Amino acid sequence: MDMAQSMAQTDTDLKVQSTHSPLESLTTLLHEDMEHVNATILQDMHSDVPLIPQLAGYLIASGGKRIRPLLTLATSRLLNTDMEHAYTLAAAVEFIHTATLLHDDVVDESTERRGQTAANLVFGNQETVLVGDFLFSRAFQLMVRTNNFDVLRILSETSSIIAEGEVLQLQYQRSLSIDWSIYKKIIGAKTASLFSAACEVSGALAQDEESQKALKAYGYNLGMAFQITDDTLDYDAKQAELGKSLGDDFREGKITAPILFALEDSTEEEKIFWERTLVQHIIQEGDLEQATALMHKYDALKRSKDLAEHYAQKAKKSLEKIEKNCLNKDILRRLQDLPFSLVSRLF
Amino acid sequence: MDMAQSMAQTDTDLKVQSTHSPLESLTTLLHEDMEHVNATILQDMHSDVPLIPQLAGYLIASGGKRIRPLLTLATSRLLNTDMEHAYTLAAAVEFIHTATLLHDDVVDESTERRGQTAANLVFGNQETVLVGDFLFSRAFQLMVRTNNFDVLRILSETSSIIAEGEVLQLQYQRSLSIDWSIYKKIIGAKTASLFSAACEVSGALAQDEESQKALKAYGYNLGMAFQITDDTLDYDAKQAELGKSLGDDFREGKITAPILFALEDSTEEEKIFWERTLVQHIIQEGDLEQATALMHKYDALKRSKDLAEHYAQKAKKSLEKIEKNCLNKDILRRLQDLPFSLVSRLF
Repeated sequence: MDMAQSMAQTDTDLKVQSTHSPLESLTTLLHEDMEHVNATILQDMHSDVPLIPQLAGYLIASGGKRIRPLLTLATSRLLNTDMEHAYTLAAAVEFIHTATLLHDDVVDESTERRGQTAANLVFGNQETVLVGDFLFSRAFQLMVRTNNFDVLRILSETSSIIAEGEVLQLQYQRSLSIDWSIYKKIIGAKTASLFSAACEVSGALAQDEESQKALKAYGYNLGMAFQITDDTLDYDAKQAELGKSLGDDFREGKITAPILFALEDSTEEEKIFWERTLVQHIIQEGDLEQATALMHKYDALKRSKDLAEHYAQKAKKSLEKIEKNCLNKDILRRLQDLPFSLVSRLF
Repeated sequence: MDMAQSMAQTDTDLKVQSTHSPLESLTTLLHEDMEHVNATILQDMHSDVPLIPQLAGYLIASGGKRIRPLLTLATSRLLNTDMEHAYTLAAAVEFIHTATLLHDDVVDESTERRGQTAANLVFGNQETVLVGDFLFSRAFQLMVRTNNFDVLRILSETSSIIAEGEVLQLQYQRSLSIDWSIYKKIIGAKTASLFSAACEVSGALAQDEESQKALKAYGYNLGMAFQITDDTLDYDAKQAELGKSLGDDFREGKITAPILFALEDSTEEEKIFWERTLVQHIIQEGDLEQATALMHKYDALKRSKDLAEHYAQKAKKSLEKIEKNCLNKDILRRLQDLPFSLVSRLF
């Protein structure tokens, strides 16, 4: 980085006040990089078949947090690697994520996503499946442009793992036989693996094996913290105050960390309640309140938060190995704080 | 090839009598190669999630013709290239094909595929979409193993094109505004592109640019001949004699070559018939007979066959450029005859 750039960065940095979350300040710091990624996304979701950019754009423009491409950008800046390739990979990662969301919405028969009507209801299930396939293929076309086999190996394996996680989740939906190891396997596969890959590819671009390993572990643990937090938010009263709906997972029979904690020491009577609501899917008025009361009884939300924090600690620790040689301390600090900040969305 | 191998091959060759179709004799000639491909398929559809190999295997084992992987094997033998990589790519091509069939079955709400209940009805739509995603990702993992960027470029682009073709077909279902250029674009994208890629990758493996170009054109024209023949078979009385159901495309409102020929010069009254059956989807008893009568009136089946033969000619001609230097005349001859043999399934 030359002096002018360095100063510009310090200048931007001053504007990023301490009240901002690391996610917000990373977004501000990497604003220009993200513009490049957005340009790639826009250009590469184009097709002669107009419905494709229309449907893909409907979801992509709907204001997701872009956290996965942001991780690719931040970790690439951290290692001072080729940013052109980082832009391409950040777009590929977002395409993979969008493709899985589109297929998820069809699979879950979603009605809403990011506060708007789900794409499958607007454009049709068939169209949504096929545009997902298109984005997925396009992601691989993007990756090929980097001329880096490690990158291709990482992201093609990750895509397989995501699909495996989704199938596993489907198989354990409405089943009390799910346990901690299966829950962790599911969220590890469907969420943490792409967080992990989004970070690891920067190490592969930099051809720096030690950093690659560290970033892989960082992304994985960050993803676990993120998903456990998300699963806990679904029962967090603070969210209801913010106008968000609670208990979506409960109604879909998805058994996540808070329920697993409440289930662990449950009485026979309580087990019958969970069996009726989650497995038999007979949900009556007051059942969500009963579920959250049981979580309260077993301190399930607090214990879920502790579990998320455990992964946040592991994420931070993963970065230790690249701390010494790291040239970009600003970004490093924010990446260290990011997992805790994600968890802090909870009560 | 050493003498022993060469003799073994001649020996196999003698068993392949002239009454066999080129497809059958290629299958016999490349029997051992295909065993390697089948082993790769079996090994790489494995997953710790048992439903995945179960569902994927249900379709893969159901006895498709394996024509696409066979093309990769035949063209790789033709160019005398690395067969280990050819096996890997043949399996990848079959995975891509299987993934699109699984998604097709969900999209078309199919009830039957290859004479058995469609996978979506046996395993569920959600499972079928996700296992399709898995196979698709696994295909890319396989390709990466070849360490060949041309191969990755060809197959990732082809996957995008297939998805585009599927979306286009969906948009023109039940619409008389479809014309020849759109029909050709659809079948070119959803069928001919993968035939083309299955052949082209052998040229990429051999790093022989001229052969690669020739094989790309060969596969494309072969795929067009194949699909037009398939679309025509749907109305071919000879098929009914073989116990196959007729008129599936008619009932689904898919407008293919035979209908396009019948539509071209249709009277106002006939247009009303097509509008009612295909667009409004009001199908009464005797309508399929009326549709085939109109095809007869306009010689639509014969003209469809001629169109398929036109592409068969082009396919054969595409091979001229590699004829001179070709070491494997046996396979060359069969590849030259293959397109005509596919078309000859018609009346």
